[in-house]
Amino acid sequence: MHLIDNLQYANWSEKIFRQMREGGVDAVHATIAYHETFREMVARIEEWNLWFERFPDLIVPGRTGDDVRRARQNGRTAIFFGFQNPSPMEDDIGLVEICHALGVRFMQLTYNNQSLLATGCYEAEDTGVTRMGRQVIREMNRVGLVIDMSHSAERSTLEAIEISERPIAITHANPAFWHPALRNKSDDVLKALGQSGGMLGFSFYPHHLKGKSDCTLQSFCEMVARTAELMGPAQIGIGSDLCQDQPDTVVEWMRVGRWSKQIDYGEGSAKDAGFPPMPGWFRDNRDFANVEKGLREVGFTQAEAAGVMGENWLAFYDANFGPAEG
Amino acid sequence: MHLIDNLQYANWSEKIFRQMREGGVDAVHATIAYHETFREMVARIEEWNLWFERFPDLIVPGRTGDDVRRARQNGRTAIFFGFQNPSPMEDDIGLVEICHALGVRFMQLTYNNQSLLATGCYEAEDTGVTRMGRQVIREMNRVGLVIDMSHSAERSTLEAIEISERPIAITHANPAFWHPALRNKSDDVLKALGQSGGMLGFSFYPHHLKGKSDCTLQSFCEMVARTAELMGPAQIGIGSDLCQDQPDTVVEWMRVGRWSKQIDYGEGSAKDAGFPPMPGWFRDNRDFANVEKGLREVGFTQAEAAGVMGENWLAFYDANFGPAEG
Repeated sequence: MHLIDNLQYANWSEKIFRQMREGGVDAVHATIAYHETFREMVARIEEWNLWFERFPDLIVPGRTGDDVRRARQNGRTAIFFGFQNPSPMEDDIGLVEICHALGVRFMQLTYNNQSLLATGCYEAEDTGVTRMGRQVIREMNRVGLVIDMSHSAERSTLEAIEISERPIAITHANPAFWHPALRNKSDDVLKALGQSGGMLGFSFYPHHLKGKSDCTLQSFCEMVARTAELMGPAQIGIGSDLCQDQPDTVVEWMRVGRWSKQIDYGEGSAKDAGFPPMPGWFRDNRDFANVEKGLREVGFTQAEAAGVMGENWLAFYDANFGPAEG
Repeated sequence: MHLIDNLQYANWSEKIFRQMREGGVDAVHATIAYHETFREMVARIEEWNLWFERFPDLIVPGRTGDDVRRARQNGRTAIFFGFQNPSPMEDDIGLVEICHALGVRFMQLTYNNQSLLATGCYEAEDTGVTRMGRQVIREMNRVGLVIDMSHSAERSTLEAIEISERPIAITHANPAFWHPALRNKSDDVLKALGQSGGMLGFSFYPHHLKGKSDCTLQSFCEMVARTAELMGPAQIGIGSDLCQDQPDTVVEWMRVGRWSKQIDYGEGSAKDAGFPPMPGWFRDNRDFANVEKGLREVGFTQAEAAGVMGENWLAFYDANFGPAEG
C-alpha cells in the first residue's frame, strides 16, 4: 500500500520529515502559497530545494505517480507542491505552465475570498467561475495542473467540475452532512465530484470535524464510509490539513494575507484565534495507522482501506499530472 | 550528423522556425535574457511556450542531449534556453536551480560590464571571479547549468575555467589570433578551455570576423582548422550569434539595458550603430551546408566536420546538462 497525505502545511523541519518516514508516508502534497506573488512563491520553492539538498535520505521532489513508487522503494517521502490561492499566477495565464514546470501540481481557484478566477466560501455572493477562470481551467487541463476547490463556494465549485475537461480535486474538506462547517461540502458537490472522477481528501483539521478536537475516530470513519457510498470508494483519500508546529502568526497570514488591515478569524474566533489542537488519534505523520485501523473497524475491506490511505490518490496522480492527451 | 547552432538571438517567427527546418538544424541554443530581471525572463519563457504550442511541428523544448536526437528523428528543432548575463538570477543563488528547472542550460557570468559574479570584457579592470561568483559556479556545477564566458574578460574567464569542476563554454566568439576584436579570445584562454574539456562556439557575427561582413568562407574555415590544432578537434562547434530580423532598438537594449542613460555602441560606432549585415555565405539557418562544405575544402574529414557542425556540442550536452554525479 502507498500512503499519501494530500494536504499539509507544516512548519517544515527535520523533525517533521523524520516523522513522515516513521509513519511510512510515501507522499505529501505540501501547500507552498496562500497569498504570495509569483516571486514570493518561487522563494518558497527555493526553501524546499534547500531541504531536498540537506535531507536527501528523507525527502525527494515529487512530479509524477512514479515518483511516489520510487520514493516508497527508496524509503523517502515524495513532496508535491500546491497553492491554496491563485495569487502566484498573478493575472498572467502563461504562469500556469511555468508553475507546472516548477513542480506545482494543485492550485485552488480561490482561497476564502473572491479571486480573479472564482468565488471563495466566505463571500456573501457566489458568481461562479469568471471569464479568466474559464481560460485558466482550460490551461490547467492542458498542462496537467489539478484544479482544487477546497476553499471555494458552492456554485463556483459545481461550475469548475462542469467546465473542467479533466477531474478536479477537493484536497482537504469533509462532508457537510456530518459537520455543517462553511468549509465542508454539500451532497450535491460531493456527488458531482465523484461522478466526474474527482477526489475528496478528508481533513483532520478540528474546525472540519464533528466535535472538533474531541471528534472520535469511530465517528470520523463512519463518515468516510457514508461518503464512500455517496461518491464511490475510489474517489476518496486523505488531505489531513496538518499544520504542525506553526506559530499563530502563520494562521493570521493564511487568513488575512495583505488583503485586509483588520484581523479576520476565519473558522476560529477572537478567543480561539490560533491553531486548534489536533484530535488524539491523529497528532502527526506517525498516526496514519490509527486511521487505517479505524477504517477496517467500521467495515472497510483491506483493499478499500488501502484505496483511502493512498492508492486512490496515486491513481489520480497517474492520470492527471501530465499534459492532456492529443 | 546532428546539426547544432549553440547561439542565436533572432526576432523569432514562424518564418525563422521554417528556415531552421529547411536548413536541417536539429537544435538551437536561444538567448532569452540580456538585462532582464527574473520575472521579466520568465515572461520570455512564456513567449516561447506560446510558440511551442503554436508550432509543434517545427520546434520543441530542449532539456537534454536526447531531446536533440528525438527532435532530429521527428523533424523538429529543439530549443535550449540561455542567458547572456546573470541578471535573471538577481542576487539569489536559489534561482540557479529554479532557472535550470525552467529549462535554462547556459548562463554567462557577465555580459560586457562587471556583474555580481565576474568582470565583463569592456571594463578597464578585471578583478576576476567574485565571492558570489565562486558560490554560483559551484551551484551551477551541482545542478547542470553551464557556465558561459563569451562576453567576460580574460582573467575572469581563466579563473572560471579553473574554479569550475565541470567544463565550461564560450558559446559565441572567435580566436583573437585571427581577428583581435575585444570579444575574441586569447590563445591562453582557448588552450585552457580545450584542456578542461570545454567548448568554443565559432561566431558568424561580423564584428567577430576578419574583414567583418566581407570575411571569406575560406578564411573562416582556415581559422577553424588552426583552432582545432590549438584546442583539439572535439572542443569546437558553432555559435553563430545570428540576430536575424532584429530591429536596431534591440541591439540598443543588448548594449545599454537600463544600466546607462547614455548610448554605448559596443562593438559598433555612432555611424555604424545597428546590426551589421551577415557574410554572404551565412545569411540564416538555411546556410549551414556552406560551412560544412567549407570545412571539408580546407581538409577536415567528414567525421571532424560533423563534430564541428553539432556532434561535439551534442556530446557536451550529454555530459553537462544533468546534476553532478554524487
